[in-house]
Amino acid sequence: MIRFGLLVAVAALSGLAALWWSTAASRTAGGTASGRKSKAGGKPNVVLFLADDMGYGDLGYSGHPTSRTPFIDNLAQNSRFFTHFYVPPVCSPSRASLMTGRYQVRSGIYPIVFTADSVYGLPTNETTIAAMLKPQGYKSMAVGKWHLGVGAENQYLPTNHGFDEYFGIPYSNDDCPCKICLPNEGPCTDPVPSCFPENVACPLFSNTTIVEQPVDLPTLTQRYVDHAINFIQRTVADGDPFFLYMPFNHVHHPHFASASHEGMNARGLFGDALAELDWAVGQVLKALKDQSLDDNTIVWFASDNGPSLMQHERGGSAGLLRCGKGTTWDGGVRTPAMVRWTGVITPGRSNALVSSMDILPTIAAYTGGNVSALTLDGMDITSVIQDNEVLGPRDFLAVYPEFPDKAQGPFAVIHGKYKAHFWTEGKFIADHENYDPMCRPSHPLTKHDPPLLFNLHLDPGERYDLSGEEKYSDEIEMIRTWLAEHIASVDWMEPLTGATDPRVQPCCGDVNCEPFPECCVCQA
Amino acid sequence: MIRFGLLVAVAALSGLAALWWSTAASRTAGGTASGRKSKAGGKPNVVLFLADDMGYGDLGYSGHPTSRTPFIDNLAQNSRFFTHFYVPPVCSPSRASLMTGRYQVRSGIYPIVFTADSVYGLPTNETTIAAMLKPQGYKSMAVGKWHLGVGAENQYLPTNHGFDEYFGIPYSNDDCPCKICLPNEGPCTDPVPSCFPENVACPLFSNTTIVEQPVDLPTLTQRYVDHAINFIQRTVADGDPFFLYMPFNHVHHPHFASASHEGMNARGLFGDALAELDWAVGQVLKALKDQSLDDNTIVWFASDNGPSLMQHERGGSAGLLRCGKGTTWDGGVRTPAMVRWTGVITPGRSNALVSSMDILPTIAAYTGGNVSALTLDGMDITSVIQDNEVLGPRDFLAVYPEFPDKAQGPFAVIHGKYKAHFWTEGKFIADHENYDPMCRPSHPLTKHDPPLLFNLHLDPGERYDLSGEEKYSDEIEMIRTWLAEHIASVDWMEPLTGATDPRVQPCCGDVNCEPFPECCVCQA
Repeated sequence: MIRFGLLVAVAALSGLAALWWSTAASRTAGGTASGRKSKAGGKPNVVLFLADDMGYGDLGYSGHPTSRTPFIDNLAQNSRFFTHFYVPPVCSPSRASLMTGRYQVRSGIYPIVFTADSVYGLPTNETTIAAMLKPQGYKSMAVGKWHLGVGAENQYLPTNHGFDEYFGIPYSNDDCPCKICLPNEGPCTDPVPSCFPENVACPLFSNTTIVEQPVDLPTLTQRYVDHAINFIQRTVADGDPFFLYMPFNHVHHPHFASASHEGMNARGLFGDALAELDWAVGQVLKALKDQSLDDNTIVWFASDNGPSLMQHERGGSAGLLRCGKGTTWDGGVRTPAMVRWTGVITPGRSNALVSSMDILPTIAAYTGGNVSALTLDGMDITSVIQDNEVLGPRDFLAVYPEFPDKAQGPFAVIHGKYKAHFWTEGKFIADHENYDPMCRPSHPLTKHDPPLLFNLHLDPGERYDLSGEEKYSDEIEMIRTWLAEHIASVDWMEPLTGATDPRVQPCCGDVNCEPFPECCVCQA
Repeated sequence: MIRFGLLVAVAALSGLAALWWSTAASRTAGGTASGRKSKAGGKPNVVLFLADDMGYGDLGYSGHPTSRTPFIDNLAQNSRFFTHFYVPPVCSPSRASLMTGRYQVRSGIYPIVFTADSVYGLPTNETTIAAMLKPQGYKSMAVGKWHLGVGAENQYLPTNHGFDEYFGIPYSNDDCPCKICLPNEGPCTDPVPSCFPENVACPLFSNTTIVEQPVDLPTLTQRYVDHAINFIQRTVADGDPFFLYMPFNHVHHPHFASASHEGMNARGLFGDALAELDWAVGQVLKALKDQSLDDNTIVWFASDNGPSLMQHERGGSAGLLRCGKGTTWDGGVRTPAMVRWTGVITPGRSNALVSSMDILPTIAAYTGGNVSALTLDGMDITSVIQDNEVLGPRDFLAVYPEFPDKAQGPFAVIHGKYKAHFWTEGKFIADHENYDPMCRPSHPLTKHDPPLLFNLHLDPGERYDLSGEEKYSDEIEMIRTWLAEHIASVDWMEPLTGATDPRVQPCCGDVNCEPFPECCVCQA
């Protein structure tokens, strides 16, 4: 314990991220028998798990009565758990912010998300976590749902974004044809369309090659695990530090699970999908442990956005937070998140205001990655992670909507424990029958002046508007001032997600994916 | 582990509770160095913590972001945690059901609750847990909020209900005068009256003697802890098995905390009160551990009902459950609950349908208590506690409202994972401004035929009514059939809570409690 205290003190005194990682790394390499020394001088490995559409209330750890997530719960108990971790409200912008440490409007990843026929992707001049780590000697692999574009020449896939390898579906599994809707999910006569037009067949990529189309979803997660573990084993054997990015397709609609998980959970098929996600995380963690890598691996877990509520009782849960995916209420933009580094991070909860954009600069701080040339919105939160008491470096955070518009700017701003909503808008994906009218798509785009103001620490459900109370006028003014500065400081890229062309759909058959559904039989 | 398996098998085969406890007891007494052998042959001690108005979502363990409850969370992780534990919707009926293992209408503890001027209390011919344990050689103490009546002759206090000792406030701390509303709670000009008329001064009893009036709330919980630990130490020294019943005043409104807890929590004064409750639980658990009693003590923890929502952001949280205290929605009648018996109970969660009424017969099963003469609604749930897989002995549970009426019967019935609401009614204590109109007092008493039907395992928030779907008609019929049988089988006692007389108010001064507030200065 004293030794750890000294390390923190050194890091705090130096203020130098590079010094921190070298100190931590030398401790790990020299201190114990565990942790293999890599060619890059014992730099920590990084694993980043990302769940899809998993809400604040979906884990056993976050209080869901019938979820069973023992592996993630155990991870949480051994991690710094973030109670106020924020993400953009939908998939592609969330992944852009995560991968680049920047607001999604800077990289053009808006509005909504990429689809199978999207022309563009994350611009190749953006620096992802993998690209940032490459000069540090890291080998990187992405396993799972990329959702930052494919491109006619596959130029937006992970292997063109700093990753050495990729295995996965490049977008959401609801961009897969009805044919592979799962048995328990019901027919495509669902009130909510669970599938997109049949001319889109879900491709499984290995690097830039389609190896299966349409993908067999029930066996997918097992294969993700196999590829992830294989990557870890190979990279460790080579003596390289690694970055494994593992964005699961679970628990996005339509839900699926392997035969060994299906029908096993009180929470139905959603529970099965969640349990398989949990199992997969557990398998990768076991592989780390089996390789004695726990002390030398930083493990992150988060979700990309809040739960899709339009599946009603078959969907996810925001727990006690308001609304869900697609909205800028906390149910849409606040998810469970945690980081574990055995022997370095003391487990505990933090109420600090943090963002998925903070992961890139924090990994940079721990690994010596150079971010000096980047315009980042993320912040190094090593002080949050390692000090129970600190509220962290971030004072403010902008919350952009699903359809960002320069004329409106961010819909909400969070300042410490306060959140101000300048605009609100209900969303179909937050359920057109939601019991809360503010969540429904029938709640139109609405400007609030003064902004609605909530104390998130006392009122996580954002129920009791404080804006009418005189004593909060200074708080609102501070937020207005910051917002004006923020708007003036952010350069928007033109929106990239909207351009579509059926001819760019990934397909190993002809350009029209004919014949369908046996459009192609790929070579493994 | 094999040994434990054999024990379970013996218990299952025998079907005899007495055999179970003697087997378990001999294991505990003979198996390890820990656990003092008592004169009664190594029977397990029992500790029963009860929180006041703590909601399903209020613990850190149940996902509240800014609650900090490390001791209770740790207890939960080492317990059988019940995800579907039901209680009556308000304090006195809940305590009656808990203490007697019977629906509150059988003992007359309705409507609402006892107040300082209530004439009656729990009938003395009711058998409490303490009374049931007395013939088994147990010494029992109640420390805290009794709320089952006082009586002009103190005849309803715990010492007339099987407890050897009592220390505490006999009703809610909102039955205390404004003078002791706590500084941070704001003045008595609160929109919600936090205090009752000033002629009621909150008494602190030691057995049947008032030792302080009005009570000093900030130091109360520390004194509860001191008395509890002192009782444990004395009883163990005497070689007797003990039952400690510890119903805290925390976290009932108005909230308070000792100087060492006040202002320490992100969740404000509610968080302080909750943290002090957690600390107190931790102190008693530490005393058990220090005395090597963990292996020989069954520790229960529950809350009496859901959260009071009328305090808005200063009140409790039902988490993802609907409405709160006073209602028959799950937010009112479902609370966190757990039981720990180190070395005997394998920790884990159970979705089994259980009730606070089950605690008495389960303690009887573990201790050899004789319940054969009692008409019980509770069930022996040792199989739920010790077998991860079993759904438990209970198929159905009736949910009675705050104002039970024979003409209406129970408002709701739970059958496994399904809950049917035959009647609903909003409540002031569930917030007249609740965002959910069904919770508000403006939602009048409403009959539902067919009943509203919810799948609690998939839809814990009771949002998606299934009653209109033909496939659930058999389920509804089964529930109707059981309900008719239940109504026919329950003898109602006349209601006892409503009769009041200012002259019976406990006061160590004159009958009018004059002068006020220094109505009396008691001898300690």
